[in-house]
Amino acid sequence: MALQKIQLYDTTLRDGTQAEGVSFSAEDKVRITQKIDELGLGFVEGGWPGSNPKDMEFFEKVRGITFDNVKITAFGSTRRAGLKPEDDPNLKALLDSGVEVATIFGKSWDLHVREALKISFEENLDLISSSVCYLKERMGQVFYDAEHFFDGYNANPEYAIKTLQSAREGGADCLVLCDTNGGMLPGQVEAIVRDVISRLDGPVGIHTHNDSDLAVANSLAAVEAGVVHVQGTINGIGERCGNANLCSIIPNLQLKMGLECLPSDQLAKLREVSRYVVELANLRHNRHQPYVGNAAFAHKGGIHVNAVLKNSDTYEHIKPELVGNHQRVLVSDLSGRANILYKAKEFGIDTDSKDPVVLEILEKLKDYENKGFQYEGAEASFELLMRRAAGKEPKFFDLIGFRVIDEKRQEDEPPVAEATIMIRVGGHVEHTASVGNGPINALDNALRKALEKFFPELKDVSLLDFKVRVLTGGEGTSVSVRVLIESGDGREKWGTVGVSHNVIEASWQALVDSINYKLLREELKREGNA
Amino acid sequence: MALQKIQLYDTTLRDGTQAEGVSFSAEDKVRITQKIDELGLGFVEGGWPGSNPKDMEFFEKVRGITFDNVKITAFGSTRRAGLKPEDDPNLKALLDSGVEVATIFGKSWDLHVREALKISFEENLDLISSSVCYLKERMGQVFYDAEHFFDGYNANPEYAIKTLQSAREGGADCLVLCDTNGGMLPGQVEAIVRDVISRLDGPVGIHTHNDSDLAVANSLAAVEAGVVHVQGTINGIGERCGNANLCSIIPNLQLKMGLECLPSDQLAKLREVSRYVVELANLRHNRHQPYVGNAAFAHKGGIHVNAVLKNSDTYEHIKPELVGNHQRVLVSDLSGRANILYKAKEFGIDTDSKDPVVLEILEKLKDYENKGFQYEGAEASFELLMRRAAGKEPKFFDLIGFRVIDEKRQEDEPPVAEATIMIRVGGHVEHTASVGNGPINALDNALRKALEKFFPELKDVSLLDFKVRVLTGGEGTSVSVRVLIESGDGREKWGTVGVSHNVIEASWQALVDSINYKLLREELKREGNA
Repeated sequence: MALQKIQLYDTTLRDGTQAEGVSFSAEDKVRITQKIDELGLGFVEGGWPGSNPKDMEFFEKVRGITFDNVKITAFGSTRRAGLKPEDDPNLKALLDSGVEVATIFGKSWDLHVREALKISFEENLDLISSSVCYLKERMGQVFYDAEHFFDGYNANPEYAIKTLQSAREGGADCLVLCDTNGGMLPGQVEAIVRDVISRLDGPVGIHTHNDSDLAVANSLAAVEAGVVHVQGTINGIGERCGNANLCSIIPNLQLKMGLECLPSDQLAKLREVSRYVVELANLRHNRHQPYVGNAAFAHKGGIHVNAVLKNSDTYEHIKPELVGNHQRVLVSDLSGRANILYKAKEFGIDTDSKDPVVLEILEKLKDYENKGFQYEGAEASFELLMRRAAGKEPKFFDLIGFRVIDEKRQEDEPPVAEATIMIRVGGHVEHTASVGNGPINALDNALRKALEKFFPELKDVSLLDFKVRVLTGGEGTSVSVRVLIESGDGREKWGTVGVSHNVIEASWQALVDSINYKLLREELKREGNA
Repeated sequence: MALQKIQLYDTTLRDGTQAEGVSFSAEDKVRITQKIDELGLGFVEGGWPGSNPKDMEFFEKVRGITFDNVKITAFGSTRRAGLKPEDDPNLKALLDSGVEVATIFGKSWDLHVREALKISFEENLDLISSSVCYLKERMGQVFYDAEHFFDGYNANPEYAIKTLQSAREGGADCLVLCDTNGGMLPGQVEAIVRDVISRLDGPVGIHTHNDSDLAVANSLAAVEAGVVHVQGTINGIGERCGNANLCSIIPNLQLKMGLECLPSDQLAKLREVSRYVVELANLRHNRHQPYVGNAAFAHKGGIHVNAVLKNSDTYEHIKPELVGNHQRVLVSDLSGRANILYKAKEFGIDTDSKDPVVLEILEKLKDYENKGFQYEGAEASFELLMRRAAGKEPKFFDLIGFRVIDEKRQEDEPPVAEATIMIRVGGHVEHTASVGNGPINALDNALRKALEKFFPELKDVSLLDFKVRVLTGGEGTSVSVRVLIESGDGREKWGTVGVSHNVIEASWQALVDSINYKLLREELKREGNA
């Protein structure tokens, strides 16, 4: 068993975004980087700065941020044939990205040198060494991704090894062997990696794809054979069948193979990070995902449940808490009560475990979650729910009614959206109207207009993000939707949630929670409680 | 490399139904068995006849059916301690099932013998041998599933091996080593299987779970070590993280390890069987699933597309047709002219690379994608876009106008949604109205109501899925939204897309595309072009 620490390299933001239907804004990319930093990985590949303006924007945004663990890397290719390194726009973009680490890929498969690059084998070796060397002289670290290395080795092992030697001669800090097509079996990977390591000095890494359903196994086989650097993505997202899934590789390395990957105790953030990336990608979290899925430690059969409650080793391969997951069984769950108490304390609500309110909150929470509410990104709504159950939710205004109208009169023009609203604050009734970019924006505008007269502090509040999520497929436009809103007032940010068959109603619930939360905070401040 | 044919054993109908949310009717189980028979597997585990009436019903239903390839097996446990085999209700149910093959599981982990059975180690060995022997004297074949074999071997290898010897002495046709908790690594599996095979004569099998994301790799490792019988489920469905996925194992064995598994040419039915089981389980087919998923051979980047069109080996690990899948080229802002030509050919639109229409489509595509349209899941909208650019888009109706009203009159009741619409078809004007579960459903209902009079074929069309995606964060409710709709008419499914600041407008665009696509298909059918 290897004794070295394994370097973890995340490429969710670059190779992950090659997945069908996945695209992150530059702001999302920054948030994901921060989460991965909290988890404690070593490297985050931010993007390909030469390829599109969004990636460039990301590199600008992270320039001012200090991370505890991750180094940001910029991805690109070796220089173009016929250009000097200093004239190559791709290498220049890597330097201009402002980061200290570059990862460049080059051709290791003779087929691609002949058919894609159409240059001599010798010239390709020079492309590799000169590109690595040029970057290494100007940056802190340079990693070399040997594209199609395993196919290349099978076709022409001597030449494939030569491409690695060229990268090493150029000064590459790590030679990363890529199974670009995802076609390898673990035994092949292990044998080839052993041969490479026996013939070259210095660190070697692995980058696999999941086309044979073996990306995790192939990564582990490479580690067994001696690699010290593993590339993958959160949840294995990536082109075709995805990349190697770091959410499986990390616990396998750390818990089963005894290899240090993350700073101690941080592995327990794994499930949170997995869910966070899914949320930002607007995908569904795979409930059956190993280690981090909702069903990963869920027991259905009665015999299993009985056995697992007495001794969890009988039907669980690890303690779920190690990766931030938990056992699920079809009996009442005492850890639920502990969670509620923990949260109540956090929100400054007086309660103890004998308080019937705690049970009531637990009941309400289960009921709401069954309906599709989710409080992980909406703690403000959860705080309001707890106060409601405790009889401590303040009421700032009453809705008398609203109407939202979308009217379309021309085929090539969007509808005009208009909202009217009538509310009561104390003894006063306010009736007003507003237009907007769509029905929800119009309703939001009208509600604020009606309330700002009474609560001028709402002028500071703005909506920062708005997510709509369809909850169950199979029934077309009559399914439930969940709306998550993020609001801010320049100092604090808070999230709220609404669920309904009607997108207007779900948005309304989240908007009202957002405003009530702000008004509550102001009231507590005046009372000196917050 | 082994020379023997590998026996494939499907347990989708028994272990697969342990998955959260999966349940098949007896009729569904019969249909799935017929599909698996067409694919050519050797065994289908029908259920546990002692455990529930639905499984008993299945065994009655299959009694009269002749299968070309599969033998049906009945599953159960070894006899209860203290009962003679002939008095044990579980063994009796296996005989009563009427099938010729039984699979029974027993305890191989000393922990379970002590803590669950609470009998002596010797008595457990007798349970195993006497149960197997009793069945073997009365049935054609008996397989022995050694539950928790690997954990048992790690805890007490000598005893674990003894349980296998007892089953063999009882006459078991195959000893199936189970990684019940799914916690093993491939290296461990391979070493343990080698030891077992060196110490026992006769066939050995493997049954793995996916809790470490290694079920497929562990199955292959066991085959490398000499097992000749592999158990798994279609698509890997099963409790927690699922069972070993036969849809990955079969092509890996047959195409990569050169082991005969299926009658020749039947591997091409793999994707169809995978989709069929998903359909009957009312799940979503995982587009990223290795070998059989929609995205398994989908290419996005322009460089990849160019290369793969010239020589598919460059970015594909196998020929997709071998497993009944096909290459897909995704249309995205990374597309080049090659992607467009590929698509035009697919849609039956006459064009060549010199046609100025191709350039125009490319321009339009980039323009639309900049606005946030995405055609990866909306090929019907893309086909309409191409026809529009080529001047070949038919116009079935004109919108004169619509109005959607959401009116809320009570704080705790959702708004009432109502849509009115006026359209023109030929010289006729239709003006109608409908309510719905929210504004989009109301608009959808009103549009169909107005059109069905003229186009009765729309009665077959239903909305299958509806996705809303906020495109850019940071601006609250005035951001753009993208709506993706999936529609179907019972024979075909198609996806359409709309983008606008206004969610009603975006939904409208997608709804109109969906209806136009259906009417276009019907028209082409009448003209004999589709």
